[in-house]
Amino acid sequence: MFYLSEPFAMPTVVVCFSPALYPYLDKGDDLITVVIDVLRATTSFCTAFDYGVREIIPVNSLETAMVHKENGHLVAAERDGVKPAFADYSNSAFDFMNNAIVGKSIYYTTTNGTRAIELATAAGKVAIASFLNIPAITRWLIAQNSNVILLCAGWKNNFCIEDTLCAGAIAKSLIQDNRFELADDSALTSVTLWNTCNEHLETMIRRSSHFNRLKKLGYDDVLSYSLQIGKSNAVPVMQGNSIVNLSNAKNNKTV
Amino acid sequence: MFYLSEPFAMPTVVVCFSPALYPYLDKGDDLITVVIDVLRATTSFCTAFDYGVREIIPVNSLETAMVHKENGHLVAAERDGVKPAFADYSNSAFDFMNNAIVGKSIYYTTTNGTRAIELATAAGKVAIASFLNIPAITRWLIAQNSNVILLCAGWKNNFCIEDTLCAGAIAKSLIQDNRFELADDSALTSVTLWNTCNEHLETMIRRSSHFNRLKKLGYDDVLSYSLQIGKSNAVPVMQGNSIVNLSNAKNNKTV
Repeated sequence: MFYLSEPFAMPTVVVCFSPALYPYLDKGDDLITVVIDVLRATTSFCTAFDYGVREIIPVNSLETAMVHKENGHLVAAERDGVKPAFADYSNSAFDFMNNAIVGKSIYYTTTNGTRAIELATAAGKVAIASFLNIPAITRWLIAQNSNVILLCAGWKNNFCIEDTLCAGAIAKSLIQDNRFELADDSALTSVTLWNTCNEHLETMIRRSSHFNRLKKLGYDDVLSYSLQIGKSNAVPVMQGNSIVNLSNAKNNKTV
Repeated sequence: MFYLSEPFAMPTVVVCFSPALYPYLDKGDDLITVVIDVLRATTSFCTAFDYGVREIIPVNSLETAMVHKENGHLVAAERDGVKPAFADYSNSAFDFMNNAIVGKSIYYTTTNGTRAIELATAAGKVAIASFLNIPAITRWLIAQNSNVILLCAGWKNNFCIEDTLCAGAIAKSLIQDNRFELADDSALTSVTLWNTCNEHLETMIRRSSHFNRLKKLGYDDVLSYSLQIGKSNAVPVMQGNSIVNLSNAKNNKTV
């Protein structure tokens, strides 16, 4: 049973359903925002780290990404679900199961995920989560002992169920053993949704608007892969202007 | 089983979790926005119509409300849960179980509810719902046969679970008998939350942040009353600059 009543005795976990709601949240000094964009940016980030990428540098515009491409860097890009012709990689995790990324920097821009990261970076520390790295990111968050906002990237500021289910799973892991407290109705709702739906997760997400949007573009192949909890040990954290992997686990894969 | 895949064959129902997300929704020409602010504005509106008020005129500022008061009108007002001294009525439904309101106009301003109404009015038709009038408003919406957005007023643009549960209950009623289709992940989530929680609705809302905020102000008395589905036959609909009751039911109460 959860009661959302201040003052909180432990670090708190809050869920933000859309980047458009992020400015309205109370944010203290000691904050980590965890950006979640299951379909598909943050799933891809975890995968890229598993396969040995050195860093991911989020950029907010296609124009900036194109300049980096012209300067000889690797670029991943997506707008409205589609890869622009100039980019090396799309926003699909499958693109990063690739030896060519080992030790490299990738400049990365997407419709929703990179914008959410930019917003969160202005408010404090930023980490990255997807279903793949839930156990790893949860262990890292517990060690930090800071307040947590789980920021769902959504789709063009609209609520997305797959990000919310992932947030609910992380929030549930954090509150186990009385280490964190749920601190808003969004967190309470996310955990309730997770508890209700986790046994038929893929069915639920296959009903969703975002999945159906991607399916029309021919991108439904990555969903089953994206829902494998614990598949990745990546702990992607923003440092300066790039995302690096703080995981100690030696699980890097090769093709 | 719901699948959110366009094109939709029937009128659609969408849920908006916050006034801050309302601008991002696709809105067609044939739209009714139903504003939900369970704690406490829309519960109070339904009650006021049950007790014979002629019309409720939403106003957005305390200053405007004060001018109406000085001109001899009845005024209901609330900011941050508290009734300003000049107002006749607070935002509690109990204030409107009152013979003095019969046949009268009430100018009404609140922290969340009246702002949501103002926003919705710019987009099309506006109706008002709470748990009290779910059967009545559902029947009316079915008769209109328009697309529906259920707009949760929330708390200062933050998500509130009590409004979402009410939206889920209305959405579930609308999709029965294949009259409407759920059209976004928010609607799918609201119905799932309602299905999961409706048997322990009051327990769930007593955990919520908004309830605990009001409780600290001494306002927890109205919750059990507010959750009585079907208690009111009111069909409050915006016409011009005021909300009137389109119900044909002769259920007006007296003290």
